Amino acid sequence: MLSGLSYIGYQRAASGGATFTGKQASTGADLPGTFHSASPDDVEAAARLAGQAFPAFRDLPGQVRGAFLRTIAANIEALGQTLTDRAMAETGLPEARIKGETARTCGQLRLFAGMVEEGSWVDARIDHADPARTPLPKPDTRSMLRPLGPVVVFGASNFPLAYSTAGGDTASALAAGCPVIVKAHAAHPGTAGLVAGAVVEAARSHNLPEGVFSMLYDAGLEVGTALVRHPLVQAVGFTGSRAGGTALAKAAAERPQPIPVYAEMSSVNPVFVLSGALAERGAALGSALAASVTAGVGQFCTCPGLVIYDRNSDIQPFQEALQSALAAALPGTMLNAGIHTNYLSKRAALAGHEGVSTLLELESPGSSGGAGLYATTVKAVLADAGLTGEVFGPATLLIAANGPNEILEVARSMEGQLTATVHGAASDVPLQKDLMAILETKAGRLLGAGVPTGLEVNQSIVHGGPWPATSDGRTTSVGGAAILRFTRHVCWQDCGDALLPPALQESNPLKLSRLVNGVRQG
Amino acid sequence: MLSGLSYIGYQRAASGGATFTGKQASTGADLPGTFHSASPDDVEAAARLAGQAFPAFRDLPGQVRGAFLRTIAANIEALGQTLTDRAMAETGLPEARIKGETARTCGQLRLFAGMVEEGSWVDARIDHADPARTPLPKPDTRSMLRPLGPVVVFGASNFPLAYSTAGGDTASALAAGCPVIVKAHAAHPGTAGLVAGAVVEAARSHNLPEGVFSMLYDAGLEVGTALVRHPLVQAVGFTGSRAGGTALAKAAAERPQPIPVYAEMSSVNPVFVLSGALAERGAALGSALAASVTAGVGQFCTCPGLVIYDRNSDIQPFQEALQSALAAALPGTMLNAGIHTNYLSKRAALAGHEGVSTLLELESPGSSGGAGLYATTVKAVLADAGLTGEVFGPATLLIAANGPNEILEVARSMEGQLTATVHGAASDVPLQKDLMAILETKAGRLLGAGVPTGLEVNQSIVHGGPWPATSDGRTTSVGGAAILRFTRHVCWQDCGDALLPPALQESNPLKLSRLVNGVRQG
Repeated sequence: MLSGLSYIGYQRAASGGATFTGKQASTGADLPGTFHSASPDDVEAAARLAGQAFPAFRDLPGQVRGAFLRTIAANIEALGQTLTDRAMAETGLPEARIKGETARTCGQLRLFAGMVEEGSWVDARIDHADPARTPLPKPDTRSMLRPLGPVVVFGASNFPLAYSTAGGDTASALAAGCPVIVKAHAAHPGTAGLVAGAVVEAARSHNLPEGVFSMLYDAGLEVGTALVRHPLVQAVGFTGSRAGGTALAKAAAERPQPIPVYAEMSSVNPVFVLSGALAERGAALGSALAASVTAGVGQFCTCPGLVIYDRNSDIQPFQEALQSALAAALPGTMLNAGIHTNYLSKRAALAGHEGVSTLLELESPGSSGGAGLYATTVKAVLADAGLTGEVFGPATLLIAANGPNEILEVARSMEGQLTATVHGAASDVPLQKDLMAILETKAGRLLGAGVPTGLEVNQSIVHGGPWPATSDGRTTSVGGAAILRFTRHVCWQDCGDALLPPALQESNPLKLSRLVNGVRQG
Repeated sequence: MLSGLSYIGYQRAASGGATFTGKQASTGADLPGTFHSASPDDVEAAARLAGQAFPAFRDLPGQVRGAFLRTIAANIEALGQTLTDRAMAETGLPEARIKGETARTCGQLRLFAGMVEEGSWVDARIDHADPARTPLPKPDTRSMLRPLGPVVVFGASNFPLAYSTAGGDTASALAAGCPVIVKAHAAHPGTAGLVAGAVVEAARSHNLPEGVFSMLYDAGLEVGTALVRHPLVQAVGFTGSRAGGTALAKAAAERPQPIPVYAEMSSVNPVFVLSGALAERGAALGSALAASVTAGVGQFCTCPGLVIYDRNSDIQPFQEALQSALAAALPGTMLNAGIHTNYLSKRAALAGHEGVSTLLELESPGSSGGAGLYATTVKAVLADAGLTGEVFGPATLLIAANGPNEILEVARSMEGQLTATVHGAASDVPLQKDLMAILETKAGRLLGAGVPTGLEVNQSIVHGGPWPATSDGRTTSVGGAAILRFTRHVCWQDCGDALLPPALQESNPLKLSRLVNGVRQG
């Protein structure tokens, strides 16, 4: 299973390019298996197969695509402890987390399976003809969402399963009817290979056209860049750094035919704790927040990196609870050496900033990341926006505002975020409303309670947000609406049932909810 | 009414920049009124007002936005013959066309008014909490579409009303809750001014926040470029040339915060006439196509510029009817001198191409455009893709294929289009299906009968298509779904009714169709 060769449709690539290994996250030692970077020919073959598979895959009944997604989930589950062990070794994430992430990954696949089996997600719209209309007869027009074509998905280092080979991007693209080419993340090549095998076996067992799925390895950036530039590729899904996402978006915009890039890039997830909430439940909020900051060693996209409060409120119980819980958190192994180094350097920059005081900075021996707690003021943040940049790891920055106006001002100054949280009590509601009116232009998800980490996967979740949280703030990369990213509206005019997709045929053979002459039916 | 000064919210700009005049399309003579290019300060003021107006305008009840759109329509209708005369003079379009376009413009405004008054377009989704769920309690999450922020709309030369100051882009953006800044097209400044006055009066009469609408004049490109680069602007709508749309998309992608550009750029709208259809109704198809080619002097975005047929079929009745109807069409005044010159030069290039024979080329005296009919082969087209470029005007190119495979091959070779039409008879259905399976990846609207010109405005129409037909092939710029372009998904988690927009409140006060726990209700 760890032969280390890319999957090109139903074939394994020849060995060829530079080789690399998976690393034990905790020690940096080589793990079993040698992985072979894909060649330009491999990229071409994967893209060509995906392009050839597209029309047949697109036109399959939703039942078949749903069954395919369910088989992928079952195959992943069947990998059992083999997958868990490899993912744990490559990422340093603990067993419970990997098992939870595996369950989430399979849950996502089944969520999309259910959607495509039911079918109404295609937003079918029908307006009937009226040949008697004057001055001109009215034609029959019918539209629905159709898949874009082959999609490239980049695996994410911080979610080896749920945002990687068969993660949300892959699941939603396959559900939409788009073939997928995954560029495996080089930090978990063994995990990627196991999951790719599960996907390929599922495709085979449903006799799907070769090329609905490929997965390419690469030690460097060449394969990913070549995939984004390939004329047959029609969209890109990515979860990673701001620099990486920005580079892909740029490459896609510079193509002769530009294509959409859905890059989830960076977020500091501000948490506002208003005076009433601090008075009412400050200590409880502090402990809960500490758990959110340190969850997954602070390596969640939704890790709360900023905490804003009014310095005229009673912050003490909150801050004491936060600080003592952070002090008690055991430093955990970080995902890889690059992330560990980056965390220490960002944390040191924060600690060394003249406007920042260090409240807590745990040691981070070996490959582990210890928590950090820092304090500054709104004034300092407004003077240096760099203070609110992402520190990827278990660190958070307390920001003291001088009254409600400074709270609103710092909210207005913020860049796009995945989430923004506002804790208030009854007495805080007016300020909370003003704040949320600003924050809804800054974030994809607004929380009125709880913590931003721990993402519900359902039809109403939004995991997205204005730039630079993502490269396309109109969308979500998690939940049912993620499927919309890989589709476009297509209209059929004056085509009889013989030429129409089943979703648009007059008798409604798929029994969908449709908008007929402007009125929802079913 | 033709004071010639830009509208900055409820104020008129000071005179300042370069001045220009509207021109009589038929003669090039100056029309009454001197128009003043907006200054950088005007751009800044319009953007700032739009940004300030946004939160209040966004949060207005749909009833109020609907009433605003209806008042705009009524105010435009009240302009009556004054508007018709000015638009006719500036564009050379005949009275019936201007009156028809005015009716369509007002119809579009009322379509969006009806949508926002009813309200379900926001795609409200609710998933209820389950505090008892294990291992973790389930939060309450609710999402809906929210407006992006200030939108810049560029007026189109070929639709002085329906795609300009209060056209589809403006109507859909205002309906979504986005303030709009229009950059008036310099070829119909008087028309733009009259319509802008109607919009501003409507905003005043509903006491809307100043800045929900502004309109800026410019003789050059500076104002448009500055608007697209302005940090407060969040999206762009444009109808025009491929060069213009590409430049705007590039400028928007290079912003520190990139924003979406919806540019409708160019299309040659291929029409395939299959053997059975030619045998069954060749002459009728030929006459109908000629009328479509010459409609609006060939200046519709959906003008059919390519006709593909199998040379082994009986093309003669079709071709004779097409050619004689084109020969009988009177050359009409083109929109402006630039478009006229460009048409003659593109037509001459086609006629001079070694692989093309000229079947008909009417004279184009003065500012008028006479029809052109040219013939070539699939082989020539595959050897030189330039042959299928847009010739903006009443010209079309007959392309002879050697059998069905060449028909499919030329379809595969095409760039993105707004429309693609396939005429077939019962005997053609297998080929028609294969062809449409290809063409759905190439066009936004597929016709199985009729002609591509004459666009229905309803909930199922798609006026869009893959690049270079538009810069964002996922969307439509006409019809109800156009509103989606100016929105993003936002999720509220664990927020009580006090913090939720009415569309997401538990009691469903707006009585919307919503997706509740994954099931459609209402």
